[in-house]
Formats: sequence, structure tokens, C-alpha cells
Amino acid sequence: ALAFSANSFSNEELLELQQDPNLWVMQNGDYASTRYSELDQINADNVKNLRVAWTFSTGVLRGHEGGPLVIGDVMYIHTPFPNKVFALDLNNEGKVIWKYEPRQDTSVIPVMCCDTVNRGVAYGDGKIFLYQADTTLVALDAKTGEKIWSVVNGDPSKGGTGTSAPMVVKDKVYVGISGGEFGVRGYLTAYDTKTGEQVWRAYSMGPDADTLIDPEQTTHLGKPVGKDSGISTWEGDQWKIGGGTTWGWYSYDPELNLIYYGTGNPSTWNPSQRPGDNRWSMTIFARDADTGVAKWLFQMTPHDEWDYDGVNEMILVDLPFPGSAAGSAAQTTTATADTTEAKPDAGFKWRSLIPGKPAAADSTVAQPAAAEEPASNVRKLLVHMDRNGFGYTLDRVTGELLVAEKFDPAVNWATHIDMETGRPQVVSKYSTDQNGEDVNTTGVCPAALGTKDQQPSSFSPRTGLFYVPTNHVCMDYEPFQISYAAGQPYVGATVSMYPAPGGTNLGNFIAWDAQEGKIVWSIPEQFSVWSGALATAGDVVFYGTLEGYLKAVDAKTGKELYRFKTPSGIIGNVNTYTHKGKQYIAVLSGLGGWAGIGMAAGLTEPNAGLGAVGAYASLSDYSQLGGQLTVFELPD
Amino acid sequence: ALAFSANSFSNEELLELQQDPNLWVMQNGDYASTRYSELDQINADNVKNLRVAWTFSTGVLRGHEGGPLVIGDVMYIHTPFPNKVFALDLNNEGKVIWKYEPRQDTSVIPVMCCDTVNRGVAYGDGKIFLYQADTTLVALDAKTGEKIWSVVNGDPSKGGTGTSAPMVVKDKVYVGISGGEFGVRGYLTAYDTKTGEQVWRAYSMGPDADTLIDPEQTTHLGKPVGKDSGISTWEGDQWKIGGGTTWGWYSYDPELNLIYYGTGNPSTWNPSQRPGDNRWSMTIFARDADTGVAKWLFQMTPHDEWDYDGVNEMILVDLPFPGSAAGSAAQTTTATADTTEAKPDAGFKWRSLIPGKPAAADSTVAQPAAAEEPASNVRKLLVHMDRNGFGYTLDRVTGELLVAEKFDPAVNWATHIDMETGRPQVVSKYSTDQNGEDVNTTGVCPAALGTKDQQPSSFSPRTGLFYVPTNHVCMDYEPFQISYAAGQPYVGATVSMYPAPGGTNLGNFIAWDAQEGKIVWSIPEQFSVWSGALATAGDVVFYGTLEGYLKAVDAKTGKELYRFKTPSGIIGNVNTYTHKGKQYIAVLSGLGGWAGIGMAAGLTEPNAGLGAVGAYASLSDYSQLGGQLTVFELPD
Ligand SMILES: O=C(O)c1cc(C(=O)O)c2c(n1)C(=O)C(=O)c1cc(C(=O)O)[nH]c1-2
Ligand SMILES: O=C(O)c1cc(C(=O)O)c2c(n1)C(=O)C(=O)c1cc(C(=O)O)[nH]c1-2
Repeated sequence: ALAFSANSFSNEELLELQQDPNLWVMQNGDYASTRYSELDQINADNVKNLRVAWTFSTGVLRGHEGGPLVIGDVMYIHTPFPNKVFALDLNNEGKVIWKYEPRQDTSVIPVMCCDTVNRGVAYGDGKIFLYQADTTLVALDAKTGEKIWSVVNGDPSKGGTGTSAPMVVKDKVYVGISGGEFGVRGYLTAYDTKTGEQVWRAYSMGPDADTLIDPEQTTHLGKPVGKDSGISTWEGDQWKIGGGTTWGWYSYDPELNLIYYGTGNPSTWNPSQRPGDNRWSMTIFARDADTGVAKWLFQMTPHDEWDYDGVNEMILVDLPFPGSAAGSAAQTTTATADTTEAKPDAGFKWRSLIPGKPAAADSTVAQPAAAEEPASNVRKLLVHMDRNGFGYTLDRVTGELLVAEKFDPAVNWATHIDMETGRPQVVSKYSTDQNGEDVNTTGVCPAALGTKDQQPSSFSPRTGLFYVPTNHVCMDYEPFQISYAAGQPYVGATVSMYPAPGGTNLGNFIAWDAQEGKIVWSIPEQFSVWSGALATAGDVVFYGTLEGYLKAVDAKTGKELYRFKTPSGIIGNVNTYTHKGKQYIAVLSGLGGWAGIGMAAGLTEPNAGLGAVGAYASLSDYSQLGGQLTVFELPD
Repeated sequence: ALAFSANSFSNEELLELQQDPNLWVMQNGDYASTRYSELDQINADNVKNLRVAWTFSTGVLRGHEGGPLVIGDVMYIHTPFPNKVFALDLNNEGKVIWKYEPRQDTSVIPVMCCDTVNRGVAYGDGKIFLYQADTTLVALDAKTGEKIWSVVNGDPSKGGTGTSAPMVVKDKVYVGISGGEFGVRGYLTAYDTKTGEQVWRAYSMGPDADTLIDPEQTTHLGKPVGKDSGISTWEGDQWKIGGGTTWGWYSYDPELNLIYYGTGNPSTWNPSQRPGDNRWSMTIFARDADTGVAKWLFQMTPHDEWDYDGVNEMILVDLPFPGSAAGSAAQTTTATADTTEAKPDAGFKWRSLIPGKPAAADSTVAQPAAAEEPASNVRKLLVHMDRNGFGYTLDRVTGELLVAEKFDPAVNWATHIDMETGRPQVVSKYSTDQNGEDVNTTGVCPAALGTKDQQPSSFSPRTGLFYVPTNHVCMDYEPFQISYAAGQPYVGATVSMYPAPGGTNLGNFIAWDAQEGKIVWSIPEQFSVWSGALATAGDVVFYGTLEGYLKAVDAKTGKELYRFKTPSGIIGNVNTYTHKGKQYIAVLSGLGGWAGIGMAAGLTEPNAGLGAVGAYASLSDYSQLGGQLTVFELPD
């Protein structure tokens, strides 16, 4: 177990800590956002014996996203608004070492679009970083809970709120901003972990000075973007209230020193009011971690007409992939001319599939003799399961688009992604822009909350597969004129949601082959899977359901191995750690988030909650609001 | 498993159902309030293997008192204000069959003295009876949750509220009233289960027509009480705002057709303002179940000076006891002249220790040969662990006082109970009346919340012992003048509480010999044990702690056999049942009640919450607010 020492914290600290599978030091487990753990005490054979070790109520209701961090013998958990933080002593049956209970103005609640969620705290430099709903970023002494500094990152009176988990890299902590439904112009900000001073801020749109885009060096699909690309595809001053908020997840490649994240929907939801591509909303950004300058970017959904925010997690893996982009595979492998595609089900040897982490034990996937030779053409990939229903695989060095395939066959708004331009081929009848204002475009799949929303996927280097919690929901979408008023909803569309045709299930939990762009297996779920997945070296994948089940499935086959009904619906992310040599699984329950907004906010009108209330109305037959940590173990 | 049938409900229904150990049909398990179960799958040997089967968040925070009922394949649970009720399908993983979510005015919250608690629903006549905080008694169809009738039992604008669990006997449902801290004159009311019409109402004080006291027939320690005994010990009209509320537990003896319950403190807490014995506050009532007429009564704490409400549960057992009151033992045993006291640790054979229930299997307590002969002198007893720190054993036929002994050695306000008069011998220096107004009387033990409060005890016929959750808390108490204003607090004392001298523990869980009036064993607990106990034929006793542990101890020795940390502090009562032949243990977590009022109501000033906040301040190091059901089972 790790002991805190004031002097032991260096810029390299997190790079080291994330390599220790006994800990869980950042929300998605590692900088690569794999949500994968090398722990294997709990495995596909014995997971059926899992039982609850202990529990802890947070004392707060509504949606509990994110999950616990475990650093040494201390577990850190957080709550939705009012954003309490608890440090729990794992040596003393979860006794509270310290708690931080901020007082925040409740006026922030109505300007949070999708429940009063918070995706978790970050650790770094001996501090716990909490990003409050009111956009206050607070640095707390990890040992004592004392506030060291705080800084205000946005303006709730104009609709700016905080829900995302900060990320710490070296001496900086990064935070985003929410408020795409209030016309907030999104930005990512880097603060100094020691002082809280702002180091840089990069807007999603606007002049190059704001966006930290270098017109010559920053590329889109390999080409320089040119001057003020964050203005040129907007009409007039609309970029100033253009959305593209940064409320999702952030990843980091230590070798490339790049951070990766996506931007949200352009404001308003009424596309007719904002002609143009609305750059750089709906865009993956690769930025220099030190300077914030964009290296490359890629826009998934130009001129969004469906609210397909591009903020979902970016998973950074090194996998065999045909072709070799300059500077990519060459950096970690001896490039060979072999372009045979390595298929996960054929097995493969890997070296360092997760950047910044040591090579794990050999895959247990059945390996034909042919696969014994070192994998070639390993490329530095970025895998992003976008809300628009396409799973993207890009070269994360260059931003080259390698794969873009539907990860739910129900997706119908676009036929495919043009691999040259990266543009979706939109189906006219599902174009809310072509159909126009005050016309109800019906049967669009996915719904506004996408084939996947904030719920983070996981990746297992042992199977080479991505485990993706998904939504299987379609919608009717009727845009209308709206005028901007600071702090007022700037939505401009009426939406209603329902299950995709041919069934009643609102979700699937799938295994995804990001090299092939194919679903390997899929488990139908009654409700959307709004919980983040965990894959382990025990070849088990864990996820939670909105009914409240923690489920464990076989990483290779998807076969259910275990389920347990936790107190409330799960929209938290499953984590694992060891304490005194024993592996535990931990997850927060607490119904809410966009899918659970009806119950969380007490809404009953089907189109309320930005259209989500109706589809999920039957949730209350399974689960009520809550806020609990459940920790699982194997019997001794 | 039992299937509902509209026709199967008869007046005898509950008498039958309470004999089925597979069900849990009333809050305290049976009419005798023993909280004892014949189930023995879970026993002292295997309870260490207990694990959590499933959980359910109620979606409500603050104190969760009472516990689930199990009738057939359905579990009924309830919440504190706003008093939701859920019917959960045990055949379908706890899925919600129906829910009832009353809308109540929040103005009732500030007139609830001791948190927004509710001690549970009652079942009878195919209905679930919910007694809301706002004093609305609602009859719900047990199958559908549909409201059949409702009636308003009190007036929250004058301080009348509802927290107690109703009791159903034959065609009547009984409910009490809270508001002793608001000058409410207490009453118990019987309503017709079919129609909701009021059948009778019996006040705790006032003229005989109000109190349903028969001046000739109703006795106090064997003597008729005389005319208007509910007025004669009050000055002027003070009885009209005299307190003596009826917020505790109710028991019933089907053979005697008597219901038993106690009344609360006289209002105000300032004793100088209300000279006299303040009859019949602080009194055990035995009333005819049909007419409400009092058969006998016994006042534990005449002229209360410490807030020692007499409402704790009355446990009805038939135990060997020397002497034989007329009509008592003779009814169930062949009386013999043998007056040898049967001591539990010497073992005994019993016939029908719990009235209205069949004889259980023989005691496993070691039985010397001498004990093989049938126990003689079995008497119909009532055991009442009073808040004033004395454990009372009475003849429940006559109201004769048999035993009155301290169940915590810390008790110091009285030296003993005079067995002739039943009066406590008050120690002058702890008399807040003698010390007078505006004088701080210090070091009184127990504190106002008593050596025991609402947390119900249990009794095992296998050991002959009572398992009592207790407080070990003392206080300073400073009375002051207060004038009555309807709906305003009518307390008139400043109180502060702290652990009893010589330790830091605020509670003990004890085994009590009610024949001897002696503590058999005692387990110190860091906090008061505010949870109701359960004893089973497996010789295990269960209780919850304010830190959140469910604990199982050996019924004979008190040795801890199992503990599990539930999400929140436990002030609920542990219940057991079977489903598909398997035994389960169920308990509600959810910190609150008077002991947890600081956290529940967000109070921090040590004397706030009627003096309780300071003593329990460190609770937040162990547990936060919550509201969860946890169901336990043995592994298959
Ligand atoms: O545009 C925005 O600023 C913004 C913010 C948030 C948020 O911060 O939670 C969500 C969304 N958009 C959004 O589109 C969305 O689907 C969503 C789901 C959730 C959630 O936590 O369940 N938040 C958000
Ligand atoms: O005098 C009353 O009417 C009254 C009501 C209640 C209640 O209804 O909860 C309590 C008390 N008194 C009381 O004295 C007391 O100790 C108490 C504890 C609790 C609890 O639920 O923890 N309620 C009450």
C-alpha cells in the first residue's frame, strides 16, 4: 500500500501510479481511458461467488456518475450536487477520514441540462481536485481534505456549469465546461496544480487566438485548417454562443504529450438557425498538453441536426492495423511490410497496447501458431464510440481516419461515413434541417442521447475488444426558432424518445472490434446502459444497469456470469482495486443522468427532460433514487 | 406462500398469519411484540456466512424506522416523510408491484419533534394501513395500492403529527398521535378497517368520557381510580394541553382482548409549570380492544421532570413467576403451589410463552433434570423497558407491579421504584422541579431520550431473555417558563447530552432477565442502539447500529457472530421471513430519529434537536443519510 509523502509527488507521479493495478488513480483507470485492470483474482470462473463486502450511503440523491478513486489505503468518493467528497479509510471499515461539503447556490440546478451529475474527482500532486456544479475547481489536500486553492471556471448565471471529471497531467489540471443547451461557448482550461493559476484556455470555436489552433500546423484529416477555422463556418457572431462544450472525458498520451477530448453540440438544437459546419463543435481535439495548441482535430458531425455531442471518451490503444502512418507505429514497433490484418479472435501478441503502461501478461485468447510472431503494423490508435452511432478508429498521431462503422444496426440518420472527407452521408428524411423548422422529423436513430452518451467503455488487451455500454433509442425531433437570452435554455427543439424499432430494449452492452469496425457480441438490455464498464485480466467485464444490477459477463463471449441488485440504478462506472492483497470491485448506485432525469428531477411529462422522460418512465418499477457505494469481494 | 383472496380475510386473519414464521405480518412480528421468529435456518453456527441477497433504495433520506412486512410473496416497505409505500415482488427480484406516493404539505416537517420518521405500515383485511406524518390514515388495497379510504386523525397546525405504526385487531385499526412537544393532548383512536369510520377515541387525560376510564372498574395497582382521574392531578385546564401522546408501540392479547400501550411526556418539559402527577401521561394503558375502556393503568413516572415518555413497547409473555394473580396463570397452566423461581439460565419448559402463538420447539437451553417437570406459576406478564431506565414486569391481567429494576447501572434520577405505590424514589439533586426554573440540573442519567427510546426489544422463548437496544446517555436539563401557542414548540427546557460517566459509549445492547430484573449480558456500543432487535429460533439475535452495522450475536452469550456495514446508520427494526423455503433477514438503513436528528435535519449547534445534536456529532464519521433496504441470506 502506498503511503503519502509530501515529497514523493513529482510530475511523473501519476504516470507511475496508473501502472499499479492495486490502485485506481483516475476516473477511467489510466491516461488511455481503457478502464482495464491487470487484477485477476476475480475471474470468469469465480466471479459467480462475488458478494458485497461493505456499502456506504453518500447521503445525496440523484444521479451518481463517475466512481471511487483508490490511492493507498484511502478511497475517495464524490456526490452529485452539492458535490460532497468523502475520504474513506480502507483500513478502518470505510470510516470517514475527512469530508468536504461545499455550499453552493441551488440556482445552478436549473441550468444543469441533464441532472445534477458529477463524473468524479481527480487526484494529482497530493491533492484531490473537485469540479463543482457551479464551476468552482477546488484543490483539496488529499490527506486532510483542507482546501488549498479554488478557482471559478465559468458563469452559471450564463448557463455554464461543471459536471466533468478533471484530469491531471504533470503540473496541470484540465477542466471542461458544460452548457451547450444554454449557448455557452465551450473551452478546455489548464490550471496550475500548485497555485490554481490559469495556464491556458482553448475555446472550441472563435478566432485562432481563442481556439489555440495554428492555421498552418493544426490539421484536419492531414491538411492544415487555415486561418480562423473556428469562425469561418459560422454565420456572423453565432460562434460566440456556439456551444461545443467540453463536458466529457479527457485522455492523454504521455509519449506524444497530447491530450484528447471531444466537443459537444453546436447551440441551438435548431439547425436552421446556424447554417454551416459549426466548427469545431462535435470535434475530437488533440492538443499539446503543455501549450494547449491543437495538433489535429476531426469533426464527426458537421452542422449537427440531432444533438450528437462528440464528447465521449477517447480510448488510446496500440493495435495492429494495416498501413503505417508516419510517426505512428514506428515509434513503438519495428515496422514490417506485413499488412495482414490481425483479428482479435485470431489472437495476437501485443507489446504495449496501452500507452504509458507496461506490457501485460500474454493474451489468453486462443493463439494460432501463425500469431506467435510479433505483431506488426501496430499503430497508435484512438478509438471513439461517438454519440452519432459510429465507432471511429483514428491514428492518434496524425488524426487519420481509419475506421468509421455503425455500432448499432439501428443507426439510420446517415448511411455511412465518407472515409475521404470524414463526413457522414446524411439521409434526407432524417435531416431535421432539410425538413425544416416546426416539422417533426420522426424515427431518427439514434435519439439525441446517442447510441452512446457519457458512459465510458473499456478495452481489454487480452481480447483486443472494446466493451461499450450503449443506448438503443430513437426519436422524433421538431426544431423551432429560439432567441438567445443569457442563462436561459437555448434548445430550440421538441424531442420525444422511444425504443428502436423491432424491440422494447432501450440498450445493449456490446463488444466491439475497432480494427474491423464490427460488433462481436451484443447483450440486449431493457434500459440504456448508462454505467461505465470495467474489463479485467480475469477476463470478466463489469457494468451496471439502470435497474440497479451490477453485472459481470465473460469478456470473450458476453455470457452473464453474475448479477447483483444494488440499491439504486447504476450510472456510475465500475472500478477495481486491491486492499491488503485482496481484489475488490466498487461502484456507485444512484439513478439519474439524462436517461434517469424523469425520476431525478421529478418530471413526468413524456417530452420533458429534453425528450427523455417518456422512454424511461417504467424505470421506477425497478429502482428509486439513491446514492450508495457498493464494494464487492470474493468470500475468503 | 400465501395467496391473497378477497374472501379469505376474516377477523381471525391476523391471529392466524402471525403464527406463520414464514411471514412478517406486523411491525413487531406478533401481537405480543416479541420480535421473535421460529425460523432457524440461519443459526448461531452459520450466521457468519450471511451475505447480502439484494437491496433497494427507497429514494428518501432521513430516519428510516420500522421495517418491512412480508405477506405471501410481497414485501411492503415505507419511508419517512413523504411516507412512500412500495410493494415489492419477491418472485421477481424485488420489482415494484405498486407504489403509493402521497403528497403532503411540507409544513408538517417542522412540527415533527424527532425527525420525519415513520414506524411502518400495518396489514389487515387485505389492506395496507399507512399513517402519514400529516396524521392522514390511509387504507390501501394490498394487491393494487389503490386508496380505499383515508381519514384525518389530527391537526398538524396545532402540532399533531403521525409517526407510529398502526395496529390492526379484528375489524379495527388503531392509531396514535404525536406532538407532546407541542402541547397536544394524546389519544388513541380505533377506526373501522372497512370504512375508516371512527369507532372510539380514548384520550390520555381529561374527563372520564374522554379517557374511557371507568372510575369504578378501571384500576391502578388494583384499586379503582375514581372519578375524572385524568383531571384531578392537573392544575386548572392544563390537561387540555397536557401531552401524554401515543406515538409508540401497541400490543394485543387475544385471550384477554386487551390492547396495551404507553403514553408520553406531559407538556411542557418545564415541570414547575404543571404541578401534580399529570395523570395519565407516562402511563401503561390496558384497554378493551372493542370498546376502548381502560381495564387498568400504571403510571411509571408521575409528574415527569425529564421527558421520560412511557411509550416503549409492551412485550406480552407467559413466564413462570412466583405468586399467581387471579385470572392470570390459571388460564393457561395448571397452577401448582410450587413457588420456586424458574431462572432462565436454569432452563425451563414452556407452553405458550407468546400469547396467541403455538408452543415452539423445546428450549435448547441446558435443562437440569429438575427442570423437566412442567413449569408452574406461569403468569401472564407484560414486560416494558421504560425510558426512565427501569425495566418493569407487570401482571398484564391485573396491572400488578411485579418487578421494576434499573436496566442500566448508570440510571441515577431515582434510587428505586417503591413496589407498593409504583412510584420512583426521586433523587433530589436530579429533580429539575426541585432545582427549579432557570437552574441547570446536571448529570441526570438517563438523558431525555431515556435508557431506551422507540427502538423495540425482542424476546426469545428459547432463552427466556429480553434483548434490549439501549442508550447510555446522561444530560444537563434547564427548565424555563414557556407559554403555550398552538402549533409552536411547547418544550420549556434546554438540554444537552453526553455519554454516561466512566466511558465514551452512548449505548449498550443487553440481555435482560425480566423475572429477576437483571442484566444477563451487555455489549457496549459506541452509539445508542436505535434499531429494533430480532431473536430467532436459530439462537441468534440481530440488531442494527447507528454506524450502519447489522450485527448478529449469540442469544445465550451475546458473543458477536457477524457484522455487515449497510449503507447508512440503522434505526430500523430487523425482520425475518422465508421466500421459496429460504430464510432471509431484512432491515432498513437510514440515519435519523432523535439520536440522528443532527444529521437528518442539518443541525450543528450542540443543544439543538432537543439537546441531542452534540452527543451524536461524531456519527458523521461513520455514516451519512440514506434510505435502503438490505436483505440477507445464507449462500446456497
Ligand atoms: O452540452 C452540454 O454542455 C452538455 C452537458 C452535459 C452535462 O454536463 O452533463 C450533458 C450534455 N450536454 C448532453 O448532451 C448529454 O447527453 C448529457 C448526458 C448527461 C448525463 O450525465 O447523463 N450529461 C449530459
Ligand atoms: O411526545 C411526542 O409526541 C413525541 C413524538 C415522537 C415521535 O412521534 O417521533 C418522539 C417523542 N415524543 C420523543 O419523546 C422521543 O424521544 C422520540 C424519539 C423519536 C424517534 O423516532 O427517534 N421520536 C420521538
